[in-house]
Amino acid sequence: MSGEPPLPVRLTQALIAAESVTPARGAVFDVLEAMLTPLGFAVDRFVTGEAPEGPVENLLAVRGTGGPHFAFAGHVDVVPAGTGWSAGAFEPVVRGDLLHGRGAVDMKGAIGAFVAAASAPQDRGTLSLIITGDEEGPAIHGTRALIDRMRVRGLQPNMCLVGEPTSTHRLGDTIKVGRRGSVNIWIDVPGQAGHVAYPHLADNPIPRLVAALAEIDALVLDTGTDWFQPSNIEITDLAVGNPATNVIPPLASARLSIRFNDQHRGAELGERIAAIVRAHAPNAVVRPVVSGEAFLTEPGPLSTLVSDAIEARLGLRPELSTSGGTSDARFLSALCPVVEFGLLNATMHKADEAVAIPDLVALADIYRDIVARALA
Amino acid sequence: MSGEPPLPVRLTQALIAAESVTPARGAVFDVLEAMLTPLGFAVDRFVTGEAPEGPVENLLAVRGTGGPHFAFAGHVDVVPAGTGWSAGAFEPVVRGDLLHGRGAVDMKGAIGAFVAAASAPQDRGTLSLIITGDEEGPAIHGTRALIDRMRVRGLQPNMCLVGEPTSTHRLGDTIKVGRRGSVNIWIDVPGQAGHVAYPHLADNPIPRLVAALAEIDALVLDTGTDWFQPSNIEITDLAVGNPATNVIPPLASARLSIRFNDQHRGAELGERIAAIVRAHAPNAVVRPVVSGEAFLTEPGPLSTLVSDAIEARLGLRPELSTSGGTSDARFLSALCPVVEFGLLNATMHKADEAVAIPDLVALADIYRDIVARALA
Repeated sequence: MSGEPPLPVRLTQALIAAESVTPARGAVFDVLEAMLTPLGFAVDRFVTGEAPEGPVENLLAVRGTGGPHFAFAGHVDVVPAGTGWSAGAFEPVVRGDLLHGRGAVDMKGAIGAFVAAASAPQDRGTLSLIITGDEEGPAIHGTRALIDRMRVRGLQPNMCLVGEPTSTHRLGDTIKVGRRGSVNIWIDVPGQAGHVAYPHLADNPIPRLVAALAEIDALVLDTGTDWFQPSNIEITDLAVGNPATNVIPPLASARLSIRFNDQHRGAELGERIAAIVRAHAPNAVVRPVVSGEAFLTEPGPLSTLVSDAIEARLGLRPELSTSGGTSDARFLSALCPVVEFGLLNATMHKADEAVAIPDLVALADIYRDIVARALA
Repeated sequence: MSGEPPLPVRLTQALIAAESVTPARGAVFDVLEAMLTPLGFAVDRFVTGEAPEGPVENLLAVRGTGGPHFAFAGHVDVVPAGTGWSAGAFEPVVRGDLLHGRGAVDMKGAIGAFVAAASAPQDRGTLSLIITGDEEGPAIHGTRALIDRMRVRGLQPNMCLVGEPTSTHRLGDTIKVGRRGSVNIWIDVPGQAGHVAYPHLADNPIPRLVAALAEIDALVLDTGTDWFQPSNIEITDLAVGNPATNVIPPLASARLSIRFNDQHRGAELGERIAAIVRAHAPNAVVRPVVSGEAFLTEPGPLSTLVSDAIEARLGLRPELSTSGGTSDARFLSALCPVVEFGLLNATMHKADEAVAIPDLVALADIYRDIVARALA
């Protein structure tokens, strides 16, 4: 490239260079605050949480007053560098059309693009950025704390866009209008240990667990909805840990992962699984941990607005998807309609994570158009 | 106790004091040879095997010529001492009526009793002792090598008694006329790893394994025979080893232990299990390892002779059992009719293993009577 890189690229480079493996705090927020303050944003930073992973920093930036109120949400924390990088993961490097660095697509690139978009003049309404340092981690002290803060401050957006990398083959081909929920369930079936030659003196827990799992595997939770694929159960682990060929073990364990659509709640699924397990093993311990409930922003004004802006810049209309893993949109959906739209996710969490510079520039243009339409 | 202990006790003490954790060789055989030579036995000792556990010693002692030929079989190796002993495991200690020490019941006590029994005069026929140092270990270079040696030497007993501790509540309440066979089967079901959010890109091996195990658990191999309880399958281990809640694992494994009666052969059971597993998981790897085939000495002259001798001394008639684990009788049954009869097994393999001195004396008396009846 010749000359100075475009603004969204420069902003993304600055964010990448501020190393911020989850949970993020300090430097990366200093960099972001230094970008936003000159643009007229009032920046509110706060540190929360005393989790084992350490405290989490969050940032809420607000410009303007009154309605309409459009919010952009995202995270500056990144997953660890891992190995296999051609250069330093936190040294933003441009090679050809690509800007490399941890967070290039997930999601410092989107934040850089949005800050560039926000450099356009704003005539009316409120524009806010809801930025956490804990999305890749436990996500306990991040976006949820930001939502609490907004409620306390009386900030109520009409629409929210999350900058997660939703594009799969081409920028703009996919936006997310919902996400499945996720619950992991740990199952422990106790038995009575013994010798295989004297099974009547023992109670082997494995057949009970196997029978329960066979029944669980045959469950059809639903057949999908207009917007969601069918909910799905995966058995992700089995564990007994018995090295002795002639011993009946005292305990058999399994773990499930259920990704479910908006026809279910995590707790209800946990109870359903527990009932099946206990029918086979009354003493079983079934422990569900809900990572997130499903959410759906029914396609409507927000998804249309975002799709129109994408089509205007790129000439393609995005698919409205609800596939994939969870994101902080599950929390934000309690606040207002929310959709997710960002860069290509092909390299996220991988070595040599990279964003195409033309995509970054186009994304900034689209974000600018989305804000203009939302605050019009 | 006052005065010199009875002969079977003194002999057992000498054998216990010669530490002989499996595989046994050397000192304990020196002790045994020194007992047998003065009684007129020709003692043939040989070392076999270069297993990782080290070489194994075996001893074949023969007195007399021609028929009938009665053989006593046993082992001088013992399981490791383990912890929790009140005194040294290899220091034979008499406390009250009990003689303590590793091997007291399994089965140096029975050897001591048999040598004491063999001190009685022998008018005709052949009496032999088939003693291995590898019964508690892999049993590859032990009794099987002794049987080969006997064949080479043209020694063919008519009847064989194994001195394993078969009594359960009272000396003489149980003799074994057969043993179940044993096969362990390792099952590996390969799949395709992936992310739980994208199950269509993965192939979870766990449901295939679970379905196969549910079918295996429902198998009825047989309903037992006149002499054997039903064959039994236990699933003894499950293993996946997947720490990540959001990952579909690449491999799921299980292990079975089948104890089977004389209606089955180990290899046939292995093939049957493999067919079930492969119906659910065509790429599964099923690896059976046969520990021993079932054997049965149909109740008849030998079991009657032993039962009569027990009844004459103790006033009770033993149950003819085929329960419990495997023993070297599975090899000896290829040679001639074989039954097992010995001390109470309550303390075998445990800390403070102990034999009641009156039992040891009674067992020597019964063994003497058995030999007299067998060689009559």
